[in-house]
Amino acid sequence: MTELTLAKSLKIIDSALAKGKELGLKPLAVVVLDAGGHLKAFQREDGASMMRFEIASGKAYGALALGVGSRWLNAQAETRPHFLEGLSAVSGGKIVAIPGGVLVKDSTGAIIGAVGITGDTSDNDEIAAIAGIEAAGFTPDAG
Amino acid sequence: MTELTLAKSLKIIDSALAKGKELGLKPLAVVVLDAGGHLKAFQREDGASMMRFEIASGKAYGALALGVGSRWLNAQAETRPHFLEGLSAVSGGKIVAIPGGVLVKDSTGAIIGAVGITGDTSDNDEIAAIAGIEAAGFTPDAG
Amino acid sequence: MTELTLAKSLKIIDSALAKGKELGLKPLAVVVLDAGGHLKAFQREDGASMMRFEIASGKAYGALALGVGSRWLNAQAETRPHFLEGLSAVSGGKIVAIPGGVLVKDSTGAIIGAVGITGDTSDNDEIAAIAGIEAAGFTPDAG
Amino acid sequence: MTELTLAKSLKIIDSALAKGKELGLKPLAVVVLDAGGHLKAFQREDGASMMRFEIASGKAYGALALGVGSRWLNAQAETRPHFLEGLSAVSGGKIVAIPGGVLVKDSTGAIIGAVGITGDTSDNDEIAAIAGIEAAGFTPDAG
Repeated sequence: MTELTLAKSLKIIDSALAKGKELGLKPLAVVVLDAGGHLKAFQREDGASMMRFEIASGKAYGALALGVGSRWLNAQAETRPHFLEGLSAVSGGKIVAIPGGVLVKDSTGAIIGAVGITGDTSDNDEIAAIAGIEAAGFTPDAG
Repeated sequence: MTELTLAKSLKIIDSALAKGKELGLKPLAVVVLDAGGHLKAFQREDGASMMRFEIASGKAYGALALGVGSRWLNAQAETRPHFLEGLSAVSGGKIVAIPGGVLVKDSTGAIIGAVGITGDTSDNDEIAAIAGIEAAGFTPDAG
Repeated sequence: MTELTLAKSLKIIDSALAKGKELGLKPLAVVVLDAGGHLKAFQREDGASMMRFEIASGKAYGALALGVGSRWLNAQAETRPHFLEGLSAVSGGKIVAIPGGVLVKDSTGAIIGAVGITGDTSDNDEIAAIAGIEAAGFTPDAG
Repeated sequence: MTELTLAKSLKIIDSALAKGKELGLKPLAVVVLDAGGHLKAFQREDGASMMRFEIASGKAYGALALGVGSRWLNAQAETRPHFLEGLSAVSGGKIVAIPGGVLVKDSTGAIIGAVGITGDTSDNDEIAAIAGIEAAGFTPDAG
């Protein structure tokens, strides 16, 4: 499995924030988690509100939890709310099931981490995450 | 960024409670949080029930968490309940997503704290919060 | 049992803060809890650090928990640390066992609430709490 | 109060990691929290172990909680272990009371955030934190 290095994680963040600026998005917060769900790098832009780290983490953690981007979790939440409630509970309250949590896959398809973004609409957050992952040479899976 | 001093916080509380009396509202509890979500001042009127501090705090904390008054969170909870459930979970159970949590903004638009009120209907709680914030010379954002 | 009203609670806080100023203490935070351990009023002076509410509350809550001022808990912690660890655990982590948590008693000796103060040394915090309670016409019990 | 911007936060992290390399320290993790204890930026070097974010955060959070560098908390823990146990409990388990949590102060002495570092010995972690803060033009307070 390819390691998601700090250098690559910073490349993801820089590229995601650049995409946000290009699209005129609100101030963003970007989390990069490793394959074990542990924080590798994080940046919160000036003006992004207080709890953005927890929200960004919750999206990325949810993606890793089931091995699918958080957009899928969002769809599940709408049709099977009790499923997401159970997931949240067994995770110890670490999951935010809305789009913007995107898996990072290497060239073999292995999951090597996840990116979570929050600050603008969930759809725009996801666009920035995908841009960041692709700029670092990896394959995004938004769910 | 303007500091939300203790003197200004007490002015907010006094004015909010005065508005409550003027309107004949039930006994209120009023929380003032600083920009980081930490308690600056609190008063619970005689006759207000046991857990009013936690409820008032939960409204104000939710407003700060996303940088928008808790009325917006209330609307989100109705259309995307799983979003609010996720937020509540990653906040460690600190959010009450109903109206009455109002941001305090200074003259530059910077968020310098939040007020949370509970005791009467959510709409009336919000009216009292807005009155208190305006009386202290700040701009309310109810969401 | 005499009720610890909001008016009396504010008298305690004002008097405790005045005592702090008279003695040249650092910025203080003052909690008043009712007999059930629920927050009645709180003020944190400008310059007091982030977590002062939780610390002041922890002192007052500990005093109410065993019906004795938190100075007694502090002594217990030194001789029977496992006792305080157990107390903390069963309280849900709500107790800070150092001086500065002082019971408020009425003229019949009934416990009608507790005051917790933090910001200066524990001994000075306690002095301010006692001054506040006495100024409001009640009897302090520091433990 | 000066704002601890993202640009300044990244300058702190880069400089702290450079100091670590200069001294031949083990892989480090560096947290920057804003004045309210909320995460602004984080980087974990390749080879740093799984829970380094939580440890680095715990040092920085403890410093902000009491408004003093975590070296002071470490000393307290040795002489008054029940005080630190109480603090940890009322913080919701967010404090790690060992050196390496250093306050960031602006030119007026106001606390504008905190840096937490872990990975090498606590003394070396603290040296790296101080170097980072000074490189960004701020004043460190290690406790």
